[in-house]
Amino acid sequence: MIATLVFVDVKPENVEDFRKITVYNHENSRKEPGNVRFDVLQSREDPTKFTLYEVFESEEAAAFHKTTAHYQLWRETVAPYMASPRKAMPTTPAAFD
Amino acid sequence: MIATLVFVDVKPENVEDFRKITVYNHENSRKEPGNVRFDVLQSREDPTKFTLYEVFESEEAAAFHKTTAHYQLWRETVAPYMASPRKAMPTTPAAFD
Repeated sequence: MIATLVFVDVKPENVEDFRKITVYNHENSRKEPGNVRFDVLQSREDPTKFTLYEVFESEEAAAFHKTTAHYQLWRETVAPYMASPRKAMPTTPAAFD
Repeated sequence: MIATLVFVDVKPENVEDFRKITVYNHENSRKEPGNVRFDVLQSREDPTKFTLYEVFESEEAAAFHKTTAHYQLWRETVAPYMASPRKAMPTTPAAFD
């Protein structure tokens, strides 16, 4: 299992559009056979800061995600919304259930 | 629902002890009636970096967690393991299932 945290810093004027396209990406990503979670988290202290918590059964399932139309639409749509480059932190779950 | 990401920077010599006590905290936290998730994530690029993903049904359930014996044991045990003060980011899930 691979769990990746993706930290996204969104321009204030794009927060609502970012939220909508990311929820759309969530809904479609959850239907992928190798997807385990795809949580979209918005900071309470700074609503321009989002964290995506993406969990896949395998490296192959995570790689497949990047080939999907919903991921590619998301990536292109959010590119101009970024206030700074997003950062991904791949992790291994030590406890997960 | 409240989902908090807690970022922990552990001294290299305490990584294994930190992992053990945190998995113990996970196991007991998952038994709390208001707990929804309590994932323990270890960075693949730097195994001294941990992220706890704690989800509770309500503010009250999150506050109750801090009164439990397992949380208090965890807090005391890990205090000397920290390489820097841990940081918590409370979030609101925009998508979660």
